[in-house]
Amino acid sequence: MNTDLLQLNIPRLDSRAADFDARLEARLQRHSLSAGPVHEAVAEIIAAVRERGDGAVLEYSRRFDGIEADSVQALCVERGRLQQALAAQPAARRRALEHAAERIRHYHEKQKQDTWSYKEADGSVYGQKVTALQRVGLYVPGGKADYPSTMLMLGIPAKVAGVEEVIAVVPTAYRKDGMVFAAAALAGVERLFTIGGAQAVAALAYGTEAVPRVDMVAGPGNIYVTAAKQQVFGEVGIDMLAGPSELTVISDGSADPDWLAMDLFAQAEHDEEAQSILIATSESHIDAVAARMARLLPGMPRRDIIAASLDRRGLLVLVRDLSEAVALSDRIAPEHLQLAVAEPAALAARVHNAGAIFLGHHSAEALGDYCAGPSHVLPTSGTARFRSALGVYDFQKRTSIIHCSPEGSRVLAATAKKLADAEGLPAHAASAAYRL
Amino acid sequence: MNTDLLQLNIPRLDSRAADFDARLEARLQRHSLSAGPVHEAVAEIIAAVRERGDGAVLEYSRRFDGIEADSVQALCVERGRLQQALAAQPAARRRALEHAAERIRHYHEKQKQDTWSYKEADGSVYGQKVTALQRVGLYVPGGKADYPSTMLMLGIPAKVAGVEEVIAVVPTAYRKDGMVFAAAALAGVERLFTIGGAQAVAALAYGTEAVPRVDMVAGPGNIYVTAAKQQVFGEVGIDMLAGPSELTVISDGSADPDWLAMDLFAQAEHDEEAQSILIATSESHIDAVAARMARLLPGMPRRDIIAASLDRRGLLVLVRDLSEAVALSDRIAPEHLQLAVAEPAALAARVHNAGAIFLGHHSAEALGDYCAGPSHVLPTSGTARFRSALGVYDFQKRTSIIHCSPEGSRVLAATAKKLADAEGLPAHAASAAYRL
Repeated sequence: MNTDLLQLNIPRLDSRAADFDARLEARLQRHSLSAGPVHEAVAEIIAAVRERGDGAVLEYSRRFDGIEADSVQALCVERGRLQQALAAQPAARRRALEHAAERIRHYHEKQKQDTWSYKEADGSVYGQKVTALQRVGLYVPGGKADYPSTMLMLGIPAKVAGVEEVIAVVPTAYRKDGMVFAAAALAGVERLFTIGGAQAVAALAYGTEAVPRVDMVAGPGNIYVTAAKQQVFGEVGIDMLAGPSELTVISDGSADPDWLAMDLFAQAEHDEEAQSILIATSESHIDAVAARMARLLPGMPRRDIIAASLDRRGLLVLVRDLSEAVALSDRIAPEHLQLAVAEPAALAARVHNAGAIFLGHHSAEALGDYCAGPSHVLPTSGTARFRSALGVYDFQKRTSIIHCSPEGSRVLAATAKKLADAEGLPAHAASAAYRL
Repeated sequence: MNTDLLQLNIPRLDSRAADFDARLEARLQRHSLSAGPVHEAVAEIIAAVRERGDGAVLEYSRRFDGIEADSVQALCVERGRLQQALAAQPAARRRALEHAAERIRHYHEKQKQDTWSYKEADGSVYGQKVTALQRVGLYVPGGKADYPSTMLMLGIPAKVAGVEEVIAVVPTAYRKDGMVFAAAALAGVERLFTIGGAQAVAALAYGTEAVPRVDMVAGPGNIYVTAAKQQVFGEVGIDMLAGPSELTVISDGSADPDWLAMDLFAQAEHDEEAQSILIATSESHIDAVAARMARLLPGMPRRDIIAASLDRRGLLVLVRDLSEAVALSDRIAPEHLQLAVAEPAALAARVHNAGAIFLGHHSAEALGDYCAGPSHVLPTSGTARFRSALGVYDFQKRTSIIHCSPEGSRVLAATAKKLADAEGLPAHAASAAYRL
């Protein structure tokens, strides 16, 4: 690769410019999943897996992932083999995985919700029973690289929630010294199948001979995986639909331009669709960061991906002040928001839409990706408007509890009867009236 | 209608029979939404609304709901008119609505979640910021009847969560003395559009000239509404995909057969696809309930719907004991589970899958439908395996908070760097290393 040819083209926008809105929207453009060729291809895969089970899974695994096996059962890795992979890790790497696992567990234990109830004066009891899902499927991507961190970020919240049976799917066989298998062991995964793609999602959603049907499928994947999750939503629980990863940094100029340049690179190196946005209040600061990026780029092993990602989706935005920066960030609703400002806590309090907020100069997104504690599975593509960071609550469900005392039911029955009559549902009215 | 011709055919199953599993599964059969003619028709409606906005909404409202208007704006009902409808209610009905609203609010206030954080020894702060969604759309069905109760059950949790702007859609103009409008006023709805169907869901998901884009669409509807929610999932938050309503009653024989008969009728009268299931431990008790149903049916105003629903989807199941009853109910994962037993609390503790549990003889489902407190918007079609009752938490989202102290970031950076190197992401490693 000739690094001289690498150009760093990151569009700059000024919030005062007349075409600002249009140019911003163009950069944030997201494509729809509910129609088009990807939808059709995935619908066909799902139908085939529902109809032919393991046979279809094997066929697609061979075609798309180059995996040869006699049966899907032969692609199942039991807990014992996962533990062996953990034991085989070099000591330093094992310590790093364990440190990350411990921190992730510590944070997520605080998210766990409990059953609650209260008694009314008439003796009636109301409440909410919190139960863990019984069996969940975790999708850990693996087409381009291994992501042991994602295994931890999905599996540990599920186990903290109390899920009895956690099944993982990874579209690659044992490789890179079994780091992903080791992470599965640490997370407490019961079984792992080395299958992936839409066929793995379909197998988990409907069950096959070898793959048991789960209650929920969680975890990020490529566009086929995401389309499959969209299509099986409702048949099975779905955490969220993941798009390319994103970072928005708000800087008041107090940050070291080198640090910001590298933080934006870290986001951009994921893939060419990843999005890195810097919002800053001073043009000279933007100049400084851009200059550092140009300087640092040739030394980056993944410089081609970084340059392509910044060219296609990156942005450097000049705004008037921090209020405008927050308003703009809320509009972007980024997966990761880094507040590289002198007073981050005050600014964070004003943020509405973000998957995770990293406060201050020392809170690099990369730390959150691996070991800060909160899950790195976060809403992308503007869905932080409505979706939460993945958490223990996603693996728990809430059932309403209604226990009326005779006196309590009399009071309710009078009201229920009146409303049922008004809605034209006489059997409801009669059922209530029996309790009068 | 000649009531002599009304036959009550409810299949009976015995859990000891050889064909039990097959017959049960046949009764629980649910259809898929992600393909077929409904999917295609809805995809076309969504595409038209995205492309032509209000024009398409008007056209479909005319075609499907017979609503004539010059503009979608003309179908918008502002808060003032909602308040007028409330003021115009007869006093007794208004009191009933207010009583229901007050109870629903009281229960949901206990569901509200708050921001939390903790400080580590090195000064780092971690936590979770809880924020209300800013604008939500509520779908209140209205094709066959008016459901002011559903307006309360959706709107009050949204307002308790702190949603700034709550927009409702109802596919019918002002009618039945404006009960639905009155309920909207009580719930705190800001604006209401008298539009419905897939076109209303698309308008809320993408926004049109008159209808603002929302962050989440919640509420039950017919199969077109549900298919539309399935297709826009991910572009916008979706509470759940609602199927026909269901009740499973577990009885140990201690219940009054009249009460049970009417409770099962109340479920069946919703529509012909509604499902009423009785699981009992004694055959003579099942005989007694069936006899009461046959006796009571002719007197029911909606007897045709009740008979059709019980014929198509009802079940009377004899089981060996209450343990088997709970296991069977967990397999059904009913929307509503009524525990008509002498010791309901002990039995409820063993239930895994249900939208809401009604404990004891006085807790009729009809009370929960209107005014017990918890929302009557509940997971159907077996989705209680993974989905919660609708609640305040659906209108709140959780953002992770990561604020590393310089010392904290040094400890994390060492681990993050090791894992980033192992995953082959050198810019992540460098970004972490700057904090070392």
